[in-house]
Amino acid sequence: MVNVDISNIWCSVSLPALLESEQEIAAAHGALMDGAGANFLPWLAGDPGPELERVRTAAEAVGSMAQVLVVVGGGAAALGARAVLELLRGRDHGLRSGLQVVFAGSDLSTAAWQNLCELLESRDFCVQILSRDGEDLPTAVTARGLRWLLERRYGTEKARERVFVTTDATRGALRALSVAEGYTTFNLPRNLEWDETPLCPGALLAPAAAGVDVEAVLRGAASIRPMLEGRSFDNPAWLYAAGRTILARRGRRVEYLTSAEPDAWTLCRWWQRLFGGRGCLGGEGLLPAMAELPADLPQLHQLLADGAAPLVQTVVRFEPPEHRVPVEMDWQNLDHLNYLEGYTLDYVLDQVLAGAVQAGVDGGVPIVMMDCGPLAEETAGELLYFFELTSCLAAGMLGRDVYEAEEPAAWAARAAELLGRPRD
Amino acid sequence: MVNVDISNIWCSVSLPALLESEQEIAAAHGALMDGAGANFLPWLAGDPGPELERVRTAAEAVGSMAQVLVVVGGGAAALGARAVLELLRGRDHGLRSGLQVVFAGSDLSTAAWQNLCELLESRDFCVQILSRDGEDLPTAVTARGLRWLLERRYGTEKARERVFVTTDATRGALRALSVAEGYTTFNLPRNLEWDETPLCPGALLAPAAAGVDVEAVLRGAASIRPMLEGRSFDNPAWLYAAGRTILARRGRRVEYLTSAEPDAWTLCRWWQRLFGGRGCLGGEGLLPAMAELPADLPQLHQLLADGAAPLVQTVVRFEPPEHRVPVEMDWQNLDHLNYLEGYTLDYVLDQVLAGAVQAGVDGGVPIVMMDCGPLAEETAGELLYFFELTSCLAAGMLGRDVYEAEEPAAWAARAAELLGRPRD
Repeated sequence: MVNVDISNIWCSVSLPALLESEQEIAAAHGALMDGAGANFLPWLAGDPGPELERVRTAAEAVGSMAQVLVVVGGGAAALGARAVLELLRGRDHGLRSGLQVVFAGSDLSTAAWQNLCELLESRDFCVQILSRDGEDLPTAVTARGLRWLLERRYGTEKARERVFVTTDATRGALRALSVAEGYTTFNLPRNLEWDETPLCPGALLAPAAAGVDVEAVLRGAASIRPMLEGRSFDNPAWLYAAGRTILARRGRRVEYLTSAEPDAWTLCRWWQRLFGGRGCLGGEGLLPAMAELPADLPQLHQLLADGAAPLVQTVVRFEPPEHRVPVEMDWQNLDHLNYLEGYTLDYVLDQVLAGAVQAGVDGGVPIVMMDCGPLAEETAGELLYFFELTSCLAAGMLGRDVYEAEEPAAWAARAAELLGRPRD
Repeated sequence: MVNVDISNIWCSVSLPALLESEQEIAAAHGALMDGAGANFLPWLAGDPGPELERVRTAAEAVGSMAQVLVVVGGGAAALGARAVLELLRGRDHGLRSGLQVVFAGSDLSTAAWQNLCELLESRDFCVQILSRDGEDLPTAVTARGLRWLLERRYGTEKARERVFVTTDATRGALRALSVAEGYTTFNLPRNLEWDETPLCPGALLAPAAAGVDVEAVLRGAASIRPMLEGRSFDNPAWLYAAGRTILARRGRRVEYLTSAEPDAWTLCRWWQRLFGGRGCLGGEGLLPAMAELPADLPQLHQLLADGAAPLVQTVVRFEPPEHRVPVEMDWQNLDHLNYLEGYTLDYVLDQVLAGAVQAGVDGGVPIVMMDCGPLAEETAGELLYFFELTSCLAAGMLGRDVYEAEEPAAWAARAAELLGRPRD
């Protein structure tokens, strides 16, 4: 269960100011969950059983056919799947296990493509294309390149068995392609009508292939759902969403999401994508950024020397593994660390974070503490759901209707024009 | 040569406003380069030859002894070394070559430590400790743990041959430890009296071991130095440092450094560390953040929908490799990409970026374009020097004396107190 502690934000926001936002956040929450045709994370309401079974079978097939699984997708589902995989199996999971998962398709870099081809030259591989519609340019171009590589390597028929697609059930070019080619296909349910979420079995094929218990991830998300339904400030989702919104109104401009867990870095990137898209609107809301603890602390300390830097720091913390690691004794003590004798790593880290929080508070910087349980499947699911929900609540407080269709992005239209894309 | 194009910032800053800052940036530049006892990147002024030769020998020794090199260090030198390695050999360099470089010591995570131990269990490894003084807590604790692992695996004598240290020539616990143990030791020259820089041979041992031509990196840095000496707005360092400072004074609060090169991500992290520490002071200066192109574009687009979000976007761009990659033809065209026939990946990317820049400008967001040459050793050196210099110029414009000793960090003092660290 995610626990949110806002006892260190009172330097910038008063309790009455927070409580005054009650109606506003209640309205946002109501519009999200009870609205006509509400379609927020629909997958969690149904029974994921049969699809989970198909994903398990596909994961086994990948493991038996390939040393590398390339996940192609530039959207939030692929980024979220990567976040889950790294959080639970480590950034370097591929070095410690049989299957290497590589994420591609979020860029159009020639150098990155050539490195990928070099990696695949001597290894058997499969490809998952994971996209709402497959029409995003970097995703589509990368997917086409990889389909060609597969066909040249394995022949048309055999190549088909190595492509897995997760996309919308009916719409989009990728669904049509997948049906025409006969690829194994999973559904990517429409979240908020137009958004992607990693919270469904098909999006989590890569973590499953790397040994993550996907059912437990989804169970974590489903089980935290009722707890985050409460319409009061006992609900940690309310504390976080309203807290950060009010902080923005009091002049704070940036929220740094920080963690001392290096394997949570991609989770922070996914959070940044989510809150950049939903939690800001024009000049309102906090701009999302991220930093690493404790290595970035000296710099954050500079920033907050006099509390004038308009930032908020949020600390995502996990329980340490059951097996703790003590600081070793060294009779020579040339590194002056023997005063830590008898302490474990996690205890030392806790004190460092406590020192950092206290220094921040003394400097007038609001700090939100988020305690998230152990690094386990259920926790990952809880966190994904928590941030999906809170980003929508924050959007609602900014007056945005999260069910409103996304405006066509001006940059994409301009790029299509420059490239001479034919009109539909 | 780094080229800075600020033609897309005029929506927020006028040319006269920029030119008015001439005296200010000239003073900052003068104080940095000509000040009494000036000690800015001292290494580049000397002859790195002999130290380079020792680094080459050590790199070969690492390659012959180990499958994994663990670099321990939470500071800017280790992060910069990682940035160079990933920029030139790719994030997944270890999967494509013999030696795997792992970076540790920027956290105190129990889970990350256990993953590292698991990785090392079945592999021969060496350790580089890379730190100004080795007294930073995460670095010191990680270094002690790895020295123990080495001794248990290889015995005390053999373990010594596997430890390489890069640290201050005379000061600090790490130098004393290194001398007492007889480790192979390289100098980490004092930059600005107290700061760490990756721009010296000893800091670049890991990239050297992974096949990077370190001499060329340093040559790149040394050769751009005179070009960035010019005391006028013809100097790209002036354009960037003054441009971002004036943008901050006009109400912009955050600078997102963005790149379409996924292997440049750690370079962005190093930049964030550098500009967080130097380019902000209390409430002044731009807060540093980072985003990935083009995948983060839809979100940035939301942010800048009406130009009211107080951000600046800086785009770091590299020339594509000589061998270009065409978009493949597909007669079925189920993914609707055949309109890209005859185009290469880099051309498509250029159009996407052009579309994004135009959309940003239309939305009133200032955009700085930074063109950096090919992904090669010299470019990496140029970029490191460029950002070292411009972060100091930005600091000077905020009225900070970059040679002034760092204040002891309040968080570190508090953590030491909580842990019962004995007073010196």
